Amino acid sequence: MQAEIIAIGSELTTGAKLDTNSQWLSRQLLAIGIPVRYHVTMADDLEAMIAAFRTSVDRSELVLITGGIGPTLDDLTRQAVAGLAGVELVLHEPSLEYIKSLFVRRQRDMPARNAIQAMFPRGSEPISNPRGSAPGIWMQVQNTADDASCQVIVMPGVPSEMKRMFQQEVLPRLSGSGRVIRHARINCFGLGESAAEEMLGELTARDRDPEVGITVHEATITLRISAHGSSEAECQRKIVDTGQIIREKLSGFVFGVEDEELEHIVVRLLCNRGLTLATAESGTGGLLAHRLTDVAGFEQCFLGGVVVPTDSAKRKLLDVDGELLKRAGAISAEAASAMADGCRKQFGTDFALAVTECPWFDPDDFTGETPTVYAALAGDDFDESHSHALVGDPAIAKSRAAKMALNLLRLRLLETD
Amino acid sequence: MQAEIIAIGSELTTGAKLDTNSQWLSRQLLAIGIPVRYHVTMADDLEAMIAAFRTSVDRSELVLITGGIGPTLDDLTRQAVAGLAGVELVLHEPSLEYIKSLFVRRQRDMPARNAIQAMFPRGSEPISNPRGSAPGIWMQVQNTADDASCQVIVMPGVPSEMKRMFQQEVLPRLSGSGRVIRHARINCFGLGESAAEEMLGELTARDRDPEVGITVHEATITLRISAHGSSEAECQRKIVDTGQIIREKLSGFVFGVEDEELEHIVVRLLCNRGLTLATAESGTGGLLAHRLTDVAGFEQCFLGGVVVPTDSAKRKLLDVDGELLKRAGAISAEAASAMADGCRKQFGTDFALAVTECPWFDPDDFTGETPTVYAALAGDDFDESHSHALVGDPAIAKSRAAKMALNLLRLRLLETD
Repeated sequence: MQAEIIAIGSELTTGAKLDTNSQWLSRQLLAIGIPVRYHVTMADDLEAMIAAFRTSVDRSELVLITGGIGPTLDDLTRQAVAGLAGVELVLHEPSLEYIKSLFVRRQRDMPARNAIQAMFPRGSEPISNPRGSAPGIWMQVQNTADDASCQVIVMPGVPSEMKRMFQQEVLPRLSGSGRVIRHARINCFGLGESAAEEMLGELTARDRDPEVGITVHEATITLRISAHGSSEAECQRKIVDTGQIIREKLSGFVFGVEDEELEHIVVRLLCNRGLTLATAESGTGGLLAHRLTDVAGFEQCFLGGVVVPTDSAKRKLLDVDGELLKRAGAISAEAASAMADGCRKQFGTDFALAVTECPWFDPDDFTGETPTVYAALAGDDFDESHSHALVGDPAIAKSRAAKMALNLLRLRLLETD
Repeated sequence: MQAEIIAIGSELTTGAKLDTNSQWLSRQLLAIGIPVRYHVTMADDLEAMIAAFRTSVDRSELVLITGGIGPTLDDLTRQAVAGLAGVELVLHEPSLEYIKSLFVRRQRDMPARNAIQAMFPRGSEPISNPRGSAPGIWMQVQNTADDASCQVIVMPGVPSEMKRMFQQEVLPRLSGSGRVIRHARINCFGLGESAAEEMLGELTARDRDPEVGITVHEATITLRISAHGSSEAECQRKIVDTGQIIREKLSGFVFGVEDEELEHIVVRLLCNRGLTLATAESGTGGLLAHRLTDVAGFEQCFLGGVVVPTDSAKRKLLDVDGELLKRAGAISAEAASAMADGCRKQFGTDFALAVTECPWFDPDDFTGETPTVYAALAGDDFDESHSHALVGDPAIAKSRAAKMALNLLRLRLLETD
């Protein structure tokens, strides 16, 4: 079974509003084994809607439509479904009674326009809407070749009404394919998208089962595993097996799963071992501390930080040697290490992470030296630092530098496991 | 001219990711008078893509496609455009040189697979991408009736790359219609959405020209003015007039326009007067410093900050009296003021802002005391503090507390203008 989702509303095609219904419905359908091939968004335009509905009915077995069933003049979805099926709209008395009762409860008179919400394409079935005045519409429509029928289901565009209607009235009547699809995500840091793909080899081939897709967000590489099977257990088995292969191939680059970020892993590793951390930031400007303090339970291991953009603040708060800053420069491995050492002493922690300034860079300028940011980790009996060439989007330079620092600590904690 | 937008990616049709590119592009096109009739989202499937592109080319004059031009095997958009036009892919040497240079710059070897990004449908034109390795594709494709041609423009799916390419390379070459629509935004802080609506009175009526809409994001209220006219100048005149009325009605709540956030205003006011600031954060955990250091030119006025979640760090780094913390509590106006004073001395700045812990709270629990966070501002001859009741979404508590602190300073700087 193939499904598609159509969102109706000029507020969507003009960009005034963002359609989030289609994403939500896709996840719901996928979970019962119905893949969604298309999302279509279109303005409130009767002719265009009939044409688009026809295209969808001819290529899919299930078409979910959201929006355009309100009482106002620009709500045309019920008319379009009638036009698609070549039938007229007829009054459904119980729906009219229900809509009237809603207005009685709200102690308001029912505007005459609301009666249109009790009109349904002949042959269709109303879907009750406990949250609002617009019932949904369920209709079987033949495809053009007339050799198969498509289920067309219309729901309100208001997300809360739509979700409730889908879960209570629609989902129980959709028989999934008997096929189940489950997803899992594995997150990596420290390598590029195409390098990851090369290391994964045939794993990312399109026809593999489970499928493995790669996406990148602010230097975090995410591998998404999609497993198909006849049961939850079968999918989980496939996901575990493929996850195992990915971990073997990418080993140290893998840091977490699902929504886990580097800061979650670092806080967990520190808390498990009763170790503490402080941060000294220049180029990340507080972002490192902000991310760490977003993790539940951070209080157990993160004792605080400083944001020291100036040499004077580095000297005063971290006791960094002014001569060193002059000699090596504030953007150097030496400065990073001195910041980390000073920070560790200041807060009395087991570890301290430091990040130097991110030099300003023009992503379009390829002349001159590659701008670089340095991170350092200080511990009881060691200091290590790492540098990162700044290329690409300057808007995510802070985020990447913060991740580089967190990853330094993560790798150190794993080594000393 | 009719346009439509196609977003490519299985991560979109499965619901793993939300497409925001189509909304953004719709707004951009509308602003130059090109209405968008359809958004289509589809999986990475070559046959289906060619079929959908054909439908679009036959019904629209402009088709913008985002996504599917990365280096990996599941990126099939370039192949689909070639298939649509019935041409082969050919190597574009300058693009290959450019991609190679990017990898040299990143000090990495170019994976063999990246070479595909230098392949273009014969007859198409590469669109340069200064932010990433995937150039875009610009191609004229005849419709099926062969009586008109459609502009097909392919851009990357990564929003930052797409937006830059659209603004720098695509938009200047698109000619719009005679009708102009212009938008402007006015940002406010310190009042609720419905209070703002009441104060604005008839301004927010649906049929007003220009229209004024209200949205709220993390306690910032944004008034969006949409003016229609036959010229840029006419729209601008309408926007200025309506903006004037809004400023009169909301006065001190208005802090900025367009993308301006409170931190931009604070940094600008400080820099203009040669004044300096430092921050002491507990509940905001570094977010205040992070936001300030995101503003261009922050170095002139923001001399640094500390993140002090523990009492011990407050005592050590800010010299806050341990007795005071015990007596008044770490979450109190007194503690906030003591933190601000200590911070101002530590960094030697004109001003210091401090934020206490944000107590954890359950947004559904209305019994007991309302949890509160305190911010304080210290200056040469004054201390003032402000408290904020934590209600609503706990996920945005940090952000709201940071804004409350910045707004304290903004109002003080305006008073002493």
